[in-house]
Amino acid sequence: MRTQLAAADAQQLILDAALPLPSETCATVDAQGRVLTEPVVSRRTLPPFDVSAMDGYAVRSGDLACASASAPVALSVAFEVAAGGAADRTLAVGEVARIFTGAPIPPGADAVVRQEDVAREASHALFSASVRAGEHLRCAGEDVRAGEMVLDAGVRLGPAALGMLASLGRTHVAVHQRPRVAILSGGDELIEPDGDPTGGRIVSSNSYSIAAQCREVGAEPIYLGIARDHPDELERFVRAGLGAHVLVTSAGVSVGDRDYVRPVLEKLGCEIAFWGVTIKPGFPLVFGRFTPRSPLGSSGGGPLVFGLPGNPVSAMVTFEEFVRPALRKLSGHALWFRPRIDAVLGERLRKAAGRLHLVRVRLERRDGRVVATSTGNQSSGVLRSMALAQGLLVFPADATELSAGAVVQVQVLDEDFLAAADAGL
Amino acid sequence: MRTQLAAADAQQLILDAALPLPSETCATVDAQGRVLTEPVVSRRTLPPFDVSAMDGYAVRSGDLACASASAPVALSVAFEVAAGGAADRTLAVGEVARIFTGAPIPPGADAVVRQEDVAREASHALFSASVRAGEHLRCAGEDVRAGEMVLDAGVRLGPAALGMLASLGRTHVAVHQRPRVAILSGGDELIEPDGDPTGGRIVSSNSYSIAAQCREVGAEPIYLGIARDHPDELERFVRAGLGAHVLVTSAGVSVGDRDYVRPVLEKLGCEIAFWGVTIKPGFPLVFGRFTPRSPLGSSGGGPLVFGLPGNPVSAMVTFEEFVRPALRKLSGHALWFRPRIDAVLGERLRKAAGRLHLVRVRLERRDGRVVATSTGNQSSGVLRSMALAQGLLVFPADATELSAGAVVQVQVLDEDFLAAADAGL
Repeated sequence: MRTQLAAADAQQLILDAALPLPSETCATVDAQGRVLTEPVVSRRTLPPFDVSAMDGYAVRSGDLACASASAPVALSVAFEVAAGGAADRTLAVGEVARIFTGAPIPPGADAVVRQEDVAREASHALFSASVRAGEHLRCAGEDVRAGEMVLDAGVRLGPAALGMLASLGRTHVAVHQRPRVAILSGGDELIEPDGDPTGGRIVSSNSYSIAAQCREVGAEPIYLGIARDHPDELERFVRAGLGAHVLVTSAGVSVGDRDYVRPVLEKLGCEIAFWGVTIKPGFPLVFGRFTPRSPLGSSGGGPLVFGLPGNPVSAMVTFEEFVRPALRKLSGHALWFRPRIDAVLGERLRKAAGRLHLVRVRLERRDGRVVATSTGNQSSGVLRSMALAQGLLVFPADATELSAGAVVQVQVLDEDFLAAADAGL
Repeated sequence: MRTQLAAADAQQLILDAALPLPSETCATVDAQGRVLTEPVVSRRTLPPFDVSAMDGYAVRSGDLACASASAPVALSVAFEVAAGGAADRTLAVGEVARIFTGAPIPPGADAVVRQEDVAREASHALFSASVRAGEHLRCAGEDVRAGEMVLDAGVRLGPAALGMLASLGRTHVAVHQRPRVAILSGGDELIEPDGDPTGGRIVSSNSYSIAAQCREVGAEPIYLGIARDHPDELERFVRAGLGAHVLVTSAGVSVGDRDYVRPVLEKLGCEIAFWGVTIKPGFPLVFGRFTPRSPLGSSGGGPLVFGLPGNPVSAMVTFEEFVRPALRKLSGHALWFRPRIDAVLGERLRKAAGRLHLVRVRLERRDGRVVATSTGNQSSGVLRSMALAQGLLVFPADATELSAGAVVQVQVLDEDFLAAADAGL
């Protein structure tokens, strides 16, 4: 087991251990946000035949070669083709067909004239201009040809891709499994939000913020509950989470007499990869995994295990930095990290050398630059400073001072901030 | 009814009509992403009393005034206080208490010494340094004081805010209602994705992309199904959607013989605000609303109505530009639009003057700049170009040419792109 890892080394070690999850077959309608494990090849040609792009009249362009405003040409409206219908017969010379958007072009016709450009007189239509062959047609295969790859493996299924799959009749797709994250709190003092907070008891709020962080990144949280400070009870809870892809605990990970998490994990065959990262907040982070040598899981299966610190801010920040990128990678995404921007520091910051600090900051646009200022009290117990934070400023491990006006790196947590130049058309 | 509106005017008119939805009481655990309608004031003080920030020993700092490495002081360990427990009695002079993180500080004690800094010998603990009063204490109210406002109205509930609410014992919160969006397709040629696509039938894919666009923005899609091209059937379907906050139809909105949407809406009392926006794709957009003069709904209630064009790309783009900002505003958000960035155009683009074009583009970072290039075929039938699009380039109505290298405005659709400088710690 390693200890006192640099933050970047810890992140790398975790990402090396987090492999994209296997494929599953998912109903397309439920696949939003999921990532394809294999390319989608169309079995259909779309449109399957030449169709009209407009409501109007299907014509033989040759019939209108001499049509003009001064010498309009009257042609017989022989039949009508609706969308979803089909022409009964070939269009003869001198004939046109009433047609609607999406309807198949009848044999013989080679163009469509918009209804706005046609005067209708009983069984005849009057054309006052010639038309280019192919006008207002959508040709067979213009969108997709059968056998063509339309979406590649690795594509995240957004609205356009889902519409595309629907149009191809693909009711199911192969996507990476969605990470299931078992969440566990530990501590005799913990209660649920509706519990009695007297007598030194406090709400186990970390489970709620962690579950929300899981949902934000598209993972499925499974809340196991609160384990009392007893090795047997903790073991029972941990066993209940072994079927998940990831197990996240909070509290119980430091070196107190009652910190049973590590011994229980080790008893169950979890290999603790490291304990302690030189980061603030979040030093006592534990990361472990079950290996083929583990007594549990015949194929060496078992979750990645994150033991997060108990302080609410430390738990949220270590989730951001270490659990979230792993969940992105497990889900099959190619990009794992939050957007990072350059910002101008609005005030002087100081710290001791040795640990990388992540400073909760507000962001503000001033004169075309982004200014970052601390949200105030950076105590790791003060969750409010996290609720106000639009970003996490990276204060490097070796640095001891950042002066006001310095250009700093900020991880952007508030997606709305990226849209803050809020302008419409 | 107005027609041929400029895109910006249409957007403004829609946003003026879209008012933030009323409040509802929502279980906190289900409130992720919702927007508070009223400030949250704490009924609790957190921590409720002075607690230990460390595992160690609660001490009277005066007892250790002369402690040093060369002259360590031995004090009696009188009792133990666990998190969730409470001290039985006051700490007397010469006594210390074993204490754990989060446990209440016993009366008499005024500091905590970390266990790493203490040598334990049976019933005594050996201290080799003095300690500042207040060291490793978290004082009562450090996080929140009773009566204090912790989250303001208008705040979007993210993971930190949800953790905060849990810690305050707030199991329910007052948030804006979530927009319910009734979705309707119209056309005899339409089938569901598992239907038989022969004989001119095509899949009603718009419903699927629109439902996904709703979910992306936190709205609840209600798919009404496919209405056949008959006014009675269409009316029956539209009536089924009148209880929603928004009704979105696709196709059936232009001027064809079979475009029954507008007449049906008008019959039911919908006031059509405009038809036709000088934008491409998406010209035939219809927007309407039910007013107090409408025969339906005693309080003048009734959904905002968007009649989107039938072409898959036109439907998605008009949703992006007109429906999405309205849904953001209905949900209570202060910011309504996608992030917009400056990009360098990678190729020359030309068009006729008169309509604002939204060009589907790929985005790429080159030498610190973002380069935008067309996704290819911009035909409004080609949904694939939308699936590939990372942004929509705004080609202003009056402009006819944008040269390669020009700086252009791009609405960013691909949130991952904003994180493309994909770097960890």
